[in-house]
Amino acid sequence: MKQINIGLLGIGNVGGGTYQILNNNHDVISERTDADIRVTKALTHNLNKKRKFEIPSDILTTNADEILNDSNINIIVEALGGIEPASTYMLKAMQSGKHVVTANKAAVAANYEKLMTVANENNVMLLTEACVAGAIPALASIQTSLQGNRFYEVSGILNGTTNYIMSKMYNEGLAYADVLKDAQAKGFAEADPTDDVMGYDIANKLSILVALTFNQYIHPKDIPTVGITNITKEDIDIAKTNGTKIKLIGSAILSETGKLSCSVKPVNINCTHPLFSVDNEFNAVYLKGDAFGELMYYGKGAGPLPTGSAVVGDIISIINNIWR
Amino acid sequence: MKQINIGLLGIGNVGGGTYQILNNNHDVISERTDADIRVTKALTHNLNKKRKFEIPSDILTTNADEILNDSNINIIVEALGGIEPASTYMLKAMQSGKHVVTANKAAVAANYEKLMTVANENNVMLLTEACVAGAIPALASIQTSLQGNRFYEVSGILNGTTNYIMSKMYNEGLAYADVLKDAQAKGFAEADPTDDVMGYDIANKLSILVALTFNQYIHPKDIPTVGITNITKEDIDIAKTNGTKIKLIGSAILSETGKLSCSVKPVNINCTHPLFSVDNEFNAVYLKGDAFGELMYYGKGAGPLPTGSAVVGDIISIINNIWR
Repeated sequence: MKQINIGLLGIGNVGGGTYQILNNNHDVISERTDADIRVTKALTHNLNKKRKFEIPSDILTTNADEILNDSNINIIVEALGGIEPASTYMLKAMQSGKHVVTANKAAVAANYEKLMTVANENNVMLLTEACVAGAIPALASIQTSLQGNRFYEVSGILNGTTNYIMSKMYNEGLAYADVLKDAQAKGFAEADPTDDVMGYDIANKLSILVALTFNQYIHPKDIPTVGITNITKEDIDIAKTNGTKIKLIGSAILSETGKLSCSVKPVNINCTHPLFSVDNEFNAVYLKGDAFGELMYYGKGAGPLPTGSAVVGDIISIINNIWR
Repeated sequence: MKQINIGLLGIGNVGGGTYQILNNNHDVISERTDADIRVTKALTHNLNKKRKFEIPSDILTTNADEILNDSNINIIVEALGGIEPASTYMLKAMQSGKHVVTANKAAVAANYEKLMTVANENNVMLLTEACVAGAIPALASIQTSLQGNRFYEVSGILNGTTNYIMSKMYNEGLAYADVLKDAQAKGFAEADPTDDVMGYDIANKLSILVALTFNQYIHPKDIPTVGITNITKEDIDIAKTNGTKIKLIGSAILSETGKLSCSVKPVNINCTHPLFSVDNEFNAVYLKGDAFGELMYYGKGAGPLPTGSAVVGDIISIINNIWR
């Protein structure tokens, strides 16, 4: 059995979830991959922080270089969030021949071309499943099972916070500000919800989805983006009367002339559309292609274990590809 | 660019769809795989049959051995249907070192262990995505992206004919016999609908899903199977009153003690369950796992192009794995 050593950059939500899955499911994962996967080093800001899971203190470090320069580490999991220093760390890791799995949509969307170029130049894999829609394995499907198709559309409900807010407004007839407060109290929305409610988080995810689906990179700042902050109870009532729901949708649609239109905006979704019944904190990715017709993936878009599931799936894909 | 030669066993619905996708999308598929994929031989019962698509007559043959013994063919697509001679052809192909992609759930479910053993012995790939839920790439996801998980459940709406019938009964208040007649007239149900309405088709698919999810083979005849033939208008009315829908569900659930329970039967699905809104001819695969939580895939379960999409996805997976 081969041994694969993982360096975790960040052991908060996503890094912590990844660590727990690799640890708790070590038996089944070893059996399925014929690999003994171990986290041998993990970066943290605070060595003494109380965590919801146990992690041996001797693998913790506050110095990223100790991980990036460790020649025994095969795969780096980047789960820091934020564009920097995450992007620099990923580039450094790949330049020293390490494969990278990242959950960091902001960094990937901002630096997609540079990151992919450096991955290619160094003949390493850079996988990003966890960046988009948490546990939903849409990116892998798009790049493998669906590759026989010409793609026409990739859209989705790509942010759990805003979908939770829109669902509450629809189901309970509440105003935006009240639902936001409730969501913040329950931990579904952050203290500063700007990135979510203004649609910026979705623009990052859409940029990555578009790059992998249409092989075309669009910077998230170039995607017209409207959030949900101006949606009123009255808007919701009108939608209800019309048999629709307002959902914050990230969408990329190819016209018949080959022009790709991307947007993030509230959309009236008809009750016959499969996205109509995707409610609360759930996410969904919706695709159109010339052969499969339409497909939708539904699942959890956030949380340590769902996002960790995507990270571990990417680790396993790398192992199956590289160490066979 | 490498050249990959395909032998098609059968050019009816699935084989024909596969041929059309490989032909119509040759440009994008070549670009994505760096492979020139060509169907060099195709088996048919009738050389002069009128088809809905054009296929060069010089690649047609009525003799399977001409394909199975052709040393220039790298991958066999088995799209004949029926347990025999399809199973024998697949074994023969693998024994002569060819990889196999099949859409034939009856053959795979009946001979799963034999087929997989021969694939392993001969170091070739046997991929079966098209056997279950048409275009939906659930099997590939289960075997790659989701492999970090302990699986708890795999269920689904795995037959479009019966889901169409149940949806019509629910939405239009019609009796079973009337909807069946209408479905037959529209081509959604076969003249002899036994395999579909008795649940046998789903039992085949569930057997394959269970084998790949739980690494445990159960012969379809050992899965307790109840169809929809006894469901009355009154049953539907009661379900409606209770806010549920009756769906024909294939399901495998692992108990806390590790016992796997499989069944095919009509189930009352609650309106909060993601399978509730999967209507008409659409299929869905629903999964539970310890890390991802719950996931659902929604898409077209039948038809030449959707099923062909799954076949071509499997061909591309083989190429990416073997000829890199």
